[in-house]
Amino acid sequence: MPITRLLIANRGEIALRIHRAAHEMGIETVAVHSTADADAMHVRLANHAVCIGPPNAAQSYLNQAAIIAAAEISGADAIHPGYGFLSENAQFAEIVEAHGIVWVGPKPEHIRTMGDKVEAKRTAGALGLPLVPGSDGAIHSTEEAARVAEQIGYPVLVKAASGGGGRGMKVIASPDQLESLIGQAKSEAKSAFGDDTVYLEKYLGNPRHIEFQVFGDGNGSAIHLGERDCSLQRRHQKVLEEAPSPVLSAEERARMGEVVRKAMADMGYRGAGTIEFLWEDGQFYFIEMNTRLQVEHPVTEMITGLDLVREQIRIADGKPLSVQQDEIEFHGHAIECRINAEDPFNFAPSPGKVTAYHAAGGMHVRVDSGLYAGYQIPPYYDSMIAKLIVYGRTREGCIMRLRRALEEMVIDGVRTSIPLHKALLQEPDILDGDYSIKWLEEWLAERNA
Amino acid sequence: MPITRLLIANRGEIALRIHRAAHEMGIETVAVHSTADADAMHVRLANHAVCIGPPNAAQSYLNQAAIIAAAEISGADAIHPGYGFLSENAQFAEIVEAHGIVWVGPKPEHIRTMGDKVEAKRTAGALGLPLVPGSDGAIHSTEEAARVAEQIGYPVLVKAASGGGGRGMKVIASPDQLESLIGQAKSEAKSAFGDDTVYLEKYLGNPRHIEFQVFGDGNGSAIHLGERDCSLQRRHQKVLEEAPSPVLSAEERARMGEVVRKAMADMGYRGAGTIEFLWEDGQFYFIEMNTRLQVEHPVTEMITGLDLVREQIRIADGKPLSVQQDEIEFHGHAIECRINAEDPFNFAPSPGKVTAYHAAGGMHVRVDSGLYAGYQIPPYYDSMIAKLIVYGRTREGCIMRLRRALEEMVIDGVRTSIPLHKALLQEPDILDGDYSIKWLEEWLAERNA
Repeated sequence: MPITRLLIANRGEIALRIHRAAHEMGIETVAVHSTADADAMHVRLANHAVCIGPPNAAQSYLNQAAIIAAAEISGADAIHPGYGFLSENAQFAEIVEAHGIVWVGPKPEHIRTMGDKVEAKRTAGALGLPLVPGSDGAIHSTEEAARVAEQIGYPVLVKAASGGGGRGMKVIASPDQLESLIGQAKSEAKSAFGDDTVYLEKYLGNPRHIEFQVFGDGNGSAIHLGERDCSLQRRHQKVLEEAPSPVLSAEERARMGEVVRKAMADMGYRGAGTIEFLWEDGQFYFIEMNTRLQVEHPVTEMITGLDLVREQIRIADGKPLSVQQDEIEFHGHAIECRINAEDPFNFAPSPGKVTAYHAAGGMHVRVDSGLYAGYQIPPYYDSMIAKLIVYGRTREGCIMRLRRALEEMVIDGVRTSIPLHKALLQEPDILDGDYSIKWLEEWLAERNA
Repeated sequence: MPITRLLIANRGEIALRIHRAAHEMGIETVAVHSTADADAMHVRLANHAVCIGPPNAAQSYLNQAAIIAAAEISGADAIHPGYGFLSENAQFAEIVEAHGIVWVGPKPEHIRTMGDKVEAKRTAGALGLPLVPGSDGAIHSTEEAARVAEQIGYPVLVKAASGGGGRGMKVIASPDQLESLIGQAKSEAKSAFGDDTVYLEKYLGNPRHIEFQVFGDGNGSAIHLGERDCSLQRRHQKVLEEAPSPVLSAEERARMGEVVRKAMADMGYRGAGTIEFLWEDGQFYFIEMNTRLQVEHPVTEMITGLDLVREQIRIADGKPLSVQQDEIEFHGHAIECRINAEDPFNFAPSPGKVTAYHAAGGMHVRVDSGLYAGYQIPPYYDSMIAKLIVYGRTREGCIMRLRRALEEMVIDGVRTSIPLHKALLQEPDILDGDYSIKWLEEWLAERNA
């Protein structure tokens, strides 16, 4: 039975995004919202709206019982979780399916596997995805360490098995440092964690974050939609994303794309997913897989022309993938700027009332946002209030258009990260595409010094 | 010397549209505005703004001396006239050029030629564009009329040479009606205009309006960017436009496109132009040529990916066409809805304050508009306040998305034509693409009866 009424278990721009795709497919939408979000745009536009609790997410957007009840009251036959909140909660996915409601997401067992760090790496390795090379578990002697380090190549990283926060971690540049640095790491680990077990891993000095968008039909067919470069990060939060990556050739894309496509096909993966890698010197190293739609999915939509939410809904509805791998073409370049209600350089949150609003517009400019003049940005949630996504036939043209669009955007009443993006788009490294995951924090440290 | 500062001699969405293209090219903008438009978005976004007079267009937007003075005061080195106002004023184009300012538009002599109805038809015919067949001037006898009518095929139209408003005009369906209806036409013409001269023309019962977008470099190179179907009109005002036309095959597009391309090349045409045809039973008949950008240019941008305003500025700057004919590809389908501040069904103007505004957004949706919450729509100008342009891979997908976008659009405080567009997109004839230039007025007459 085709989906006719979709409950959107989320808020903000992504709720609006999902509403749009559903309505274009002729599917009614049900918004759920906290009391703080009663005036939100996604609530106004949905066909039905159910209040599910107070602002605190635990009592509303994470309140599984309230969301299931909202689906039953409103007669929703499917639930789309968006990103964040319950989107990677395998148990919730199981409960949804147990209620006979279509879960617009991956199979619960895949959400569970990829949500477990150790299990995810094991699975990725078994599926042929490249991992960071290292010792197979703990190392027991300097000789063993030397053998492993030789194999994976210097520099190597010695890491405490029980570690975290950089303690018990040392970068070893050459064989002569091996004995003393492993000794230091072990003694740090012993005193910090009461466990001196250490292991070796290849050291990535200046990697990029490159991720592949994948889709599977759940029956062994899968496609990839190319990569996104999300190296511009602050505290692991992506700030600006682009597709394609400035460092990948069409051949590298096709080769790595086929690796991830085959992995997803072999896994029998269903729905949208993103496989995240670190990338350095032409090599990919698996980090994790996100079993959901990503914030930055529109850059992929821009260069492929595919509607990713529509594809998710189709697959959940039991339909085959709408395209085959050989039908997918990549055109031009797209960049997304995440616009947050916060101080652009010290990142202090800045919720409050939007007194004037003008979204950038025109050719090849897309703003995904629920903002409007008079909207009160609540202080309870993620600070992202808009995504500005721009397309150009070339990366250079895309950047020129993006600058124009940033200049044009008006969000009065709160501080936003627009000035940060404007500043970034003047930096030669950004213009050259020459940046790693460390670039932004170093730049900010220098700027704020 | 490249253009560095562009004066935009217009207002509303088209001023904003031109500003966007200029800024993406790194060109500063100068807005000119009447006192009524001081708070307009295009004035806010421009690098410089000059007030050129009171609301009455004759004293501001049509005030040639004031605009030239504004260009000189602000140091603008080029003027873009947009559409309407002075855009097809050959004399103004000459004055601009005489002041050593770049005119972003066609050569003045081509503006003049195409602005004269008789001269335009003569030129079009000489360039090989198909005209409505008819007698070569006045007819002098029933025998001559019969011969001509036989040649062009029944039904034919007998028209008074001095005529207008349908007087002295008769549709002749077959040879036996010839003598009596020509007699009636002559006597009507005599009494109405004091001149009984009549001529014959092919009668088009139910034509479509199909126009071709062209560009020339002024040196004999030209391209066409396919057609737009603008048959949905009320009192010669276009309401909704689409590209490609639902009735044209790729072969017909290529064949007719080559005819117009060659005509423009032979003419040495410079800049953007639109050649308008009536179309019936697979045949094109030249109506007129607009020597400027059209309101509906974005649908062409959507299906070709080309930025038409950027192309205009490049050509004015002496650069060659950015693409050759064989590099132009047509993808998907685009529709534009003109959104006017007026009653959707009786068309009474509805200026006033916009109390709430939410532009439709998301994938493949573009809104060209200077609206914002709190904006006061002045009563002095054209009622068009926004253009909603939507793309889809198929016409059907485009219509689904357009319906969603129309539902989403919020313009409170004034009446708008959004309900008209929503109603049109439920009509089987529109969904089938089965409509002529007469369709909308007939539909409205029936609806409002």
